[in-house]
Amino acid sequence: MSTDKNLVVALSGGIGGAKLALGLSRVMPAADLVVVGNTGDDFEHLGLSISPDLDTLMYALAGLDDPQRGWGRRDETWTFMTALSKLGGETWFQLGDGDLATHVERTRRLRHGESLSAITADLCARLGIAARVLPMTDDTAQTILFTTEGPLDFQDYFVRLRCEPEVLKIEYEGAADAGVHPDVLAALEDPALRAVVICPSNPFLSINPILAVGTMRGAIANCAAPVVAVSPIIGGRAVKGPTAKLMTELGRRATAAAVAQLYVDLLDGYVIDHADAHDAAAVADLGIPVAPAHTLMRTLEDREALARHVLATADALPKKTA
Amino acid sequence: MSTDKNLVVALSGGIGGAKLALGLSRVMPAADLVVVGNTGDDFEHLGLSISPDLDTLMYALAGLDDPQRGWGRRDETWTFMTALSKLGGETWFQLGDGDLATHVERTRRLRHGESLSAITADLCARLGIAARVLPMTDDTAQTILFTTEGPLDFQDYFVRLRCEPEVLKIEYEGAADAGVHPDVLAALEDPALRAVVICPSNPFLSINPILAVGTMRGAIANCAAPVVAVSPIIGGRAVKGPTAKLMTELGRRATAAAVAQLYVDLLDGYVIDHADAHDAAAVADLGIPVAPAHTLMRTLEDREALARHVLATADALPKKTA
Repeated sequence: MSTDKNLVVALSGGIGGAKLALGLSRVMPAADLVVVGNTGDDFEHLGLSISPDLDTLMYALAGLDDPQRGWGRRDETWTFMTALSKLGGETWFQLGDGDLATHVERTRRLRHGESLSAITADLCARLGIAARVLPMTDDTAQTILFTTEGPLDFQDYFVRLRCEPEVLKIEYEGAADAGVHPDVLAALEDPALRAVVICPSNPFLSINPILAVGTMRGAIANCAAPVVAVSPIIGGRAVKGPTAKLMTELGRRATAAAVAQLYVDLLDGYVIDHADAHDAAAVADLGIPVAPAHTLMRTLEDREALARHVLATADALPKKTA
Repeated sequence: MSTDKNLVVALSGGIGGAKLALGLSRVMPAADLVVVGNTGDDFEHLGLSISPDLDTLMYALAGLDDPQRGWGRRDETWTFMTALSKLGGETWFQLGDGDLATHVERTRRLRHGESLSAITADLCARLGIAARVLPMTDDTAQTILFTTEGPLDFQDYFVRLRCEPEVLKIEYEGAADAGVHPDVLAALEDPALRAVVICPSNPFLSINPILAVGTMRGAIANCAAPVVAVSPIIGGRAVKGPTAKLMTELGRRATAAAVAQLYVDLLDGYVIDHADAHDAAAVADLGIPVAPAHTLMRTLEDREALARHVLATADALPKKTA
């Protein structure tokens, strides 16, 4: 490890990625961590602009996340939803009373012309988060799932229909024309860049939307630092959410190796769970060094240990494309 | 009293008026009661369209009002405000978590092109309110207070500055060009109209804004049924709010008689409190019959008793202009 390289860029979706992002922010100077959050699931609901993954990241990094539910805020109340239900409002998407403050404030500021990245930076600062959280873009890039029940946006698919429709293909509408935030590009080109970490998030719904934004994928492929991903698959299953079901529907196997295949042009190293040791050879066949670890993050110590392992893996690796 | 006259139109602001409106809705068939609510204080806050008087009426008529605070909902929680404060949002206007559901749902529906009256009717129906609550207009008519600190809208004056600036004059911006809801005009012209009740609300901030809307004042003056007001002044003081201070600043005495003077072209009868018996002669000098009563509404029984007294007063009166 060269001690002059201090900057880490992490790509993350919601819950799984946010756990590793929190771990990273605790085992390195948090101010040197840039977390790029997926906004392909952002949507408007009840007239409010909702950024589920940015919020999950923000709450996790601020220690405000609910450890039981895995989304939203701890010590939450639900008076709004109860009252809304009695008024005949839409209740399929649960919004906690404290969580609402984020959506109302963000929506107000977006309407006043502030960028999502500026708002996110300010909200994070207010909550005492030292890491930088940046949306993958300030433009619109919407993940659309083409299913047997027609095209669906993420929340329709994920929350309202509980991932039940079979997915035929996924598109990232607007992503190619969307701009990567200049600070993300600057970090990727920074000589001080130590590593790019692809967090254990859903590849199709969280990571690919980020990689699809403008010049993002190329900038990561060309960056001088090692790129290390952590498999979201543990023992052939997703820890949470529809990753395994989706991969199967999209004609892939639900394995750690199949996820690595999706990032083969980017990866200099890959962290799989000990439970997936049988996949190591398949990953190695892709030309990607494998660094097995305990990847299930139940406790804060798990998050920190995995973060340390990921950084150590990156520090020990040569840059493949260098 | 002629039993074929069943329809009552009540003009109301917030808390005081809402108490009498509730009383009326309980001592007559509620479906025959049309409550016209002041919307001169409506404003946008945090990107939400807020109609304070309509909400106070709605919560009072649905039995959801907070009996201690006098505004908002009972059994309210405040998680949103606490979270908003930590995010650096504006907190001078308190919004309860349950109350927020009303504002979010109303705002969403207004943006979808529904009228305020249609939304209000639907929300009231959802809450089981049999009386009809109508905004004074579906157009914009804004109460502006010209003060020693410049022009202020109502919430700035009332909530943020706690009624402290001296008021020089009040204007109802847009009111003359605003349209009275056709159902209000129809009720005022209905042969079944039994009475028009001017509730004990602030004359300058609640009742005059209603009377200033389009053809409202003329329609009330010309209606065939008696018009009866209840004084908001008890013993020379306002029960709540800045009525007395405002009247003094605007060059009037803070008396029941001075309020009657404001409606002299409309009134066929006037209900004053027993504590203001000394004012009866001054009101009679205006040519308005006086019907003293106990007007302080602490209990539900008080509200019902005053409502009965007001209706009996109207039933016993000849129409002045008839």
